[in-house]
Amino acid sequence: MHILITGAAGMIGRKLTARLVADGTLGGREITALTLADVAAPPAPTGFAGQVDCRAADLEQPDQPARLIDTRPDVIFHLAAIVSAEAEIEFDKGYRINLDATRAVFDAIRAAHLAEGYCPRMVMASSIAVVGAPLPHPIPDEFHLTPLTSYGTQKAICELLLSDYTRHGFMDGIGIRLPTICIRPGAPNKAASGFFSSILREPLIGQEAVLPVPDTIRHWHASPRSAVGFLLHGATMDLTALGSRRNLSMPGLSATVAEQIEALRRVAGAGAVALIRRDPDPFITRMCESWATGFEATRARALGFTAEDSFDEIIRIHIEDELGGTA
Amino acid sequence: MHILITGAAGMIGRKLTARLVADGTLGGREITALTLADVAAPPAPTGFAGQVDCRAADLEQPDQPARLIDTRPDVIFHLAAIVSAEAEIEFDKGYRINLDATRAVFDAIRAAHLAEGYCPRMVMASSIAVVGAPLPHPIPDEFHLTPLTSYGTQKAICELLLSDYTRHGFMDGIGIRLPTICIRPGAPNKAASGFFSSILREPLIGQEAVLPVPDTIRHWHASPRSAVGFLLHGATMDLTALGSRRNLSMPGLSATVAEQIEALRRVAGAGAVALIRRDPDPFITRMCESWATGFEATRARALGFTAEDSFDEIIRIHIEDELGGTA
Repeated sequence: MHILITGAAGMIGRKLTARLVADGTLGGREITALTLADVAAPPAPTGFAGQVDCRAADLEQPDQPARLIDTRPDVIFHLAAIVSAEAEIEFDKGYRINLDATRAVFDAIRAAHLAEGYCPRMVMASSIAVVGAPLPHPIPDEFHLTPLTSYGTQKAICELLLSDYTRHGFMDGIGIRLPTICIRPGAPNKAASGFFSSILREPLIGQEAVLPVPDTIRHWHASPRSAVGFLLHGATMDLTALGSRRNLSMPGLSATVAEQIEALRRVAGAGAVALIRRDPDPFITRMCESWATGFEATRARALGFTAEDSFDEIIRIHIEDELGGTA
Repeated sequence: MHILITGAAGMIGRKLTARLVADGTLGGREITALTLADVAAPPAPTGFAGQVDCRAADLEQPDQPARLIDTRPDVIFHLAAIVSAEAEIEFDKGYRINLDATRAVFDAIRAAHLAEGYCPRMVMASSIAVVGAPLPHPIPDEFHLTPLTSYGTQKAICELLLSDYTRHGFMDGIGIRLPTICIRPGAPNKAASGFFSSILREPLIGQEAVLPVPDTIRHWHASPRSAVGFLLHGATMDLTALGSRRNLSMPGLSATVAEQIEALRRVAGAGAVALIRRDPDPFITRMCESWATGFEATRARALGFTAEDSFDEIIRIHIEDELGGTA
């Protein structure tokens, strides 16, 4: 089995690669080749016996999507995207990368389908940004697409394209609508949602973190480990059960900031909690209030997708996967 | 006021043009110029005192959208599209015309906005094809986008683009999700939905019509006159009440084929009804069963959009507008 990952150098891409290499198989089939693509070539994974092709592929370039599909992967994890804040400011770039590049990948698949019957499994990362306020809580599976960012608009459009290209038989696609990933490993970033991770991640290693919103803010979370699990399940399950509705809101954990902090207290003690410094930011607070606070995810749960039940578990997963098992 | 209509040679475009010419004003402002665009130049309307520019504009050509926007219309009625059956068979053409051309028009508007603050009212025709089975009855305003055709996918994508371009302030857009137009004037066409009109239209002029589905099939209708009314209301109302959700399911009439036929009997008598010949077609029946049977249209009704309450009224409108007032 040959697997292609676009956006392979990103956080989820690296974790997915590591998991595939560790497993050596996907859905019971041996992984014989990995094509790892990103704007800069991702590092080659260690310990993989099969063939690895790490390539720099700028999907904005017209020939690049077709060159990736020329390798005829059996399964494609399409993770490549620019993030929400960048897509909002860089309007053209956002549409080029988050919409046109995805469509170019789909069109390259279609061309190969029409030429020789090629029909890969396409597992595409989507986002809760496809919805925006005013929102019910929890959001039902049949709630409409109401993005309030260009990023969310682009993801919603890619969901529609994925369904249509799948319905025509060009590919066997599933869109995985990811919760906010928490605890996101690594250094703090400038995403408005970054504090959801940093108020746990920094205190766990004895550093101060800034909380810009009230403790009452509720949001929708899943661990990086769950995100990888969603993608793997989407790659291996029988998708005929999805019918024509190929985009699924994933399960996750709906929690307030206060619940996050109490979980931190239970797992890492009052000293860790004392490292959270409150510095209210009305702009970030207003943004958070426009985001989803939770999804029913009835279909995804029924189809076997699972996520964490508590923030204690999310914190423990971070400690296991990022901090060598100690807090 | 300068008004641009794309797809001006189509059935709705011609009726909209006639209404604008008859009114001479839109929202209380004098119409001083009309730009009427279609693949072949539409005929010039008679009786219009202002400036008329009837042009052949193939929106697939890269320079055409910008050349239309160069005329700086205050209000744009964007009706241009290829129909569902054609978009399903001609995959590339459907995406080029129904998606790429719309995006090119929007991008030309954005370029003019960035250059000089241009911000027109954009009234875009969308369709109930943005949803597909399984569907509730009636469909609530917050129901998700579930197209089962490439046409419906393209319209759903254009709705998302319209919202995003409006949110960025490039234009002041509204998407008008039209019911099936009934009674569609003119000769029978090959649309699978054509019988909804022909079982009334042909008997009203003493001709036989074929009914390919059971009398129990329910569907969602509005007259051509209502469709024009929706577009005019969308062009003149204050859109700030819509917030960020700029695409609206229009009101309409949910009726079974049996209810259509009983209305025909009341308006035109048993002789007209006797001209309906039943010739069941399982393929068309299955397609009809995947279509919307009715929308709540709560938001649109609250915002002042109105449609017919009975099929008697729809038939009488056809008699008035197409048959010179006699049945």
